[in-house]
Amino acid sequence: MNGAEYIASFLEKKNCKNVFLVTGGACAFIVDAIARNPNLKYYPMQHEQSAAMAADAVWKIDRTIGVTVATSGPGATNLITGIACSFFDSIPTIHLTGQVNQKEKEIYKGTKVRQAGFQQTDIVEMVKPITKYSVQVTSAEELKLELAKAYSIAISGRMGPVLIDIPMDIQQVELEEDILEIQPKNLKLKDKEIIDIKKSINNFFSDSKRPLILLGAGPGLCDQTKKITDWIKENELPFVTSWNGMCFIDHKNGNYHGSIGVYGNRGSNFILQSSDNLLVLGSRLDNRQRGNVAQFAPLAKIKVLDIDIAELQKYSGEKNYDVNQFDFRDSSRLFSDFKLNLRNDLTEWNSYCHQIKKKYFGIWPSSSSVKYNSLNPYDLVKKVNSLIDGDAIVTVDDGANLCWVFQAFERTTQTIFTAGGNSPMGYSFPAAIGSAIHSPNKQIICFTGDGSMQMNIQELQTMTYHKLPIKIFILNNFGYGIIKQFQDTWFEGRYEATGKGYSLPDFKKVSEAYGVGYRRIENVDDLSLKDLNSSQGLVFDVILNPNTLIEPKIDNGNPLHNQFPYLELEQDCLEFKYLKNYT
Amino acid sequence: MNGAEYIASFLEKKNCKNVFLVTGGACAFIVDAIARNPNLKYYPMQHEQSAAMAADAVWKIDRTIGVTVATSGPGATNLITGIACSFFDSIPTIHLTGQVNQKEKEIYKGTKVRQAGFQQTDIVEMVKPITKYSVQVTSAEELKLELAKAYSIAISGRMGPVLIDIPMDIQQVELEEDILEIQPKNLKLKDKEIIDIKKSINNFFSDSKRPLILLGAGPGLCDQTKKITDWIKENELPFVTSWNGMCFIDHKNGNYHGSIGVYGNRGSNFILQSSDNLLVLGSRLDNRQRGNVAQFAPLAKIKVLDIDIAELQKYSGEKNYDVNQFDFRDSSRLFSDFKLNLRNDLTEWNSYCHQIKKKYFGIWPSSSSVKYNSLNPYDLVKKVNSLIDGDAIVTVDDGANLCWVFQAFERTTQTIFTAGGNSPMGYSFPAAIGSAIHSPNKQIICFTGDGSMQMNIQELQTMTYHKLPIKIFILNNFGYGIIKQFQDTWFEGRYEATGKGYSLPDFKKVSEAYGVGYRRIENVDDLSLKDLNSSQGLVFDVILNPNTLIEPKIDNGNPLHNQFPYLELEQDCLEFKYLKNYT
Repeated sequence: MNGAEYIASFLEKKNCKNVFLVTGGACAFIVDAIARNPNLKYYPMQHEQSAAMAADAVWKIDRTIGVTVATSGPGATNLITGIACSFFDSIPTIHLTGQVNQKEKEIYKGTKVRQAGFQQTDIVEMVKPITKYSVQVTSAEELKLELAKAYSIAISGRMGPVLIDIPMDIQQVELEEDILEIQPKNLKLKDKEIIDIKKSINNFFSDSKRPLILLGAGPGLCDQTKKITDWIKENELPFVTSWNGMCFIDHKNGNYHGSIGVYGNRGSNFILQSSDNLLVLGSRLDNRQRGNVAQFAPLAKIKVLDIDIAELQKYSGEKNYDVNQFDFRDSSRLFSDFKLNLRNDLTEWNSYCHQIKKKYFGIWPSSSSVKYNSLNPYDLVKKVNSLIDGDAIVTVDDGANLCWVFQAFERTTQTIFTAGGNSPMGYSFPAAIGSAIHSPNKQIICFTGDGSMQMNIQELQTMTYHKLPIKIFILNNFGYGIIKQFQDTWFEGRYEATGKGYSLPDFKKVSEAYGVGYRRIENVDDLSLKDLNSSQGLVFDVILNPNTLIEPKIDNGNPLHNQFPYLELEQDCLEFKYLKNYT
Repeated sequence: MNGAEYIASFLEKKNCKNVFLVTGGACAFIVDAIARNPNLKYYPMQHEQSAAMAADAVWKIDRTIGVTVATSGPGATNLITGIACSFFDSIPTIHLTGQVNQKEKEIYKGTKVRQAGFQQTDIVEMVKPITKYSVQVTSAEELKLELAKAYSIAISGRMGPVLIDIPMDIQQVELEEDILEIQPKNLKLKDKEIIDIKKSINNFFSDSKRPLILLGAGPGLCDQTKKITDWIKENELPFVTSWNGMCFIDHKNGNYHGSIGVYGNRGSNFILQSSDNLLVLGSRLDNRQRGNVAQFAPLAKIKVLDIDIAELQKYSGEKNYDVNQFDFRDSSRLFSDFKLNLRNDLTEWNSYCHQIKKKYFGIWPSSSSVKYNSLNPYDLVKKVNSLIDGDAIVTVDDGANLCWVFQAFERTTQTIFTAGGNSPMGYSFPAAIGSAIHSPNKQIICFTGDGSMQMNIQELQTMTYHKLPIKIFILNNFGYGIIKQFQDTWFEGRYEATGKGYSLPDFKKVSEAYGVGYRRIENVDDLSLKDLNSSQGLVFDVILNPNTLIEPKIDNGNPLHNQFPYLELEQDCLEFKYLKNYT
């Protein structure tokens, strides 16, 4: 078999059934070999950026690895924004780029020319900051070794994307069929080390009066959420989540108290800020979670368990932080038979949490919608939430639409995700395409914005061609809403390039031009179950006032418990029960 | 003034009037400052990729520098494919990316986390392989210094793109208004060195019987083409061009004998292959020009003048190559008062060149169009060529459409260009938008393909919003034609992902949805002067047979004089007059 056929066999063996790609001269052998492999299917996208985002969705759906193929030069560089999504959110993906024939490059004798061959580009170097591993293979042996190695690296430890750059001659080289495999290298703690972590968690909480767990995406990405929520329940602890952590939680869970952060639920933030011992499980506590870092959980000692040693090192010297490196794949070892020995009665604290929850959970007033007498985006999200299937897949984009959905959506058993760290405009639609192809029997819901929809609108053609019944909700605020809100604060409302100078198409005309149905939603009642369950793809153009705000949110470096719009609270209110002595 | 205002003043001073951008939180201060500067205008695009391609067009039009602004993370990475276009084609462009606040990054204490702040991405490192210079500024002083330095680097020597990454706090820092400037550093040959090059060129040609000049884009990019073509005329030498070199040549020039290369004119290639002394001026002789390198100009000694020392180093050890580093900005010093002292009478050689030219110049049969009784794309290109204004701007994309246009278009005084080295799908349309904005009074013609049009189709909105009267010709062969031709050769015509699995929208519906007029062209006579001169933007959907070939082209490592479709030439034919003893 040749190199390209070997690649196809490798993907087959790894159960990477669906490959997203745009073809080109330098990757044509790989595409042809994939086409000839009866257990693989390829899907041509209309832009490589979308291919990488579609591939990113695959792991988020069922923990198999998404794959792209792209040609050299612009094909490869077009993948970059999508690859970055996988990197920042710890998603394993494999990107196979074609590269010019090595013979073609030899002509340049290693001189530092800008380009050694037509469309030759040093993609391996370019993606180093956004991949776990990137490598060009130069022989049949290297192809076998590096494919196995890259795959292993992608799924080991803190996961992430890898890129293998494959010159055309290596795609054609003859080699043996035996597929080389390399086992993933994971942190393997000894039993004693697990016991030590148990002890330290127990000690951490032993004197606590207001313990709290903050759950990130770490456990969910390796399917260990249940193990941990069972342990939380067993110990009757309250917990909150990060946004990516929320994606794995059943909102009906009685111990759950919502998502914290700059755009978090007010109640969740009050709880977090009031806790005295905060255990963080698999969350990197990025800046959008902690807000004003010095005032994050100001009354608490904080203990963080994370797989990534670099993420833990950032707490060094912070006296209220304590850390353990831990691989959540090992959750059953740590969280089994692990009843905490708590000295204090938590009745008051748990009661406080439930009172706050009752007041704030699921309640999303929109002062701007009231002001403009316009559709409240939170109401729309809740309506969609209430009507979709229990196993629906929901992809969410960025900016204001992301905030509105991640604030108001109460996930129970659905799959919901966004590209949290990279958060590019235009992610959710190609991710929905990847989802619809990878999970053809599930309902696929895509939330996006008007600006974001334009970023990958060409994929309406992919949707039409494959008859994908995706339901696209454009939360249309006629501009870049999250930036407008920033401009309100900083530029006295000069909406340069967000309102002024910004323009958007008539989504009805464009959707229908691509053969996709269209519904205009001016009122939540305009949304019908029949449309949601339609076997056709549909665009729902949700008409919002251009000045619809994200509420609540943190402004101006305030701590998490002081979100805009500012509440007028009494000194001895419930919210500040524990915080009142904190200034 | 603050950092953002300083940037705006700097751009104003450098006469960079039009800025192409997509805004975002991390660059909002820069956008606001540009908006407030009365001598600058910004243009929001619908994707950063298009912004970078629009900026790339600016230098190609009038030798001013194109500028983009993008936000951190995905905003910055979306620029990459466009930046690579500028790098490989030696086009100076400036890319200003917003970056997260340094305070936000400080929280991470230099640990190697994947992302130090929301949407933080190491764009500076990522673009190093495709920029002349990329840098992040960390203080007011650095901002002043690096802006000046980056600008100077961009326009010095072999030109190219630069990127300056500007944290949000630096956009807000207070600084003095005096704009720092740094002079460009160019190769300044001494008079004696210029005389030595003159002597060596004279020696090079002195015994030549079949001298030839090959002109690249180097002289044209610094507006020195006329100086050189005058010198060529004075010495009665024949000359040919590379594709990017062709863009600066008047096809009516009597000494001109067309473009050479893998997709070059047959006649031009015969002349090149027959020459005995080939002087290459400002062309890097990339692989698509030389084809089979060992058989390129097989009868000739080759002398290359180029600004880029690395491009010259690749010839080291090649005994038939001789090189000089030369900056074509100095053309008037080298090519003035420089009458060659040629020993041989060139009448026979010049007569040969003109006979070949008569036979092949401007003649583009399309055997596939005859076979399928379909529109010959070359006829369409010639028709457009004949009808457009003398000062029209023509942007051309990639793949088959690029080949058809660059083969058949006979440039006289128009501006025509493509992104030759990077050659991404989707370049020509945003480049046309950049052109229409930068040169509002000129006719703008855009050639693209059906696959390529989809890559940046969102920009139809930008075109509509700004009422840009661009005439877009989609040479629609219903698939990736150039790859199909490759698949004919290698995969027995299995059109995986180019015909099979590939799909395209109804361009009539999509164009009209965006408010752009549409014309279907099935015959060259369907194209009217009235439409071409319309004040409205129009899409011309040029319907080709899906199997329309690029003819001629080099296949299978053949030398330049043996292009597909293969000619049946007699042993003593004109074409092989000088080549017949060469095997």
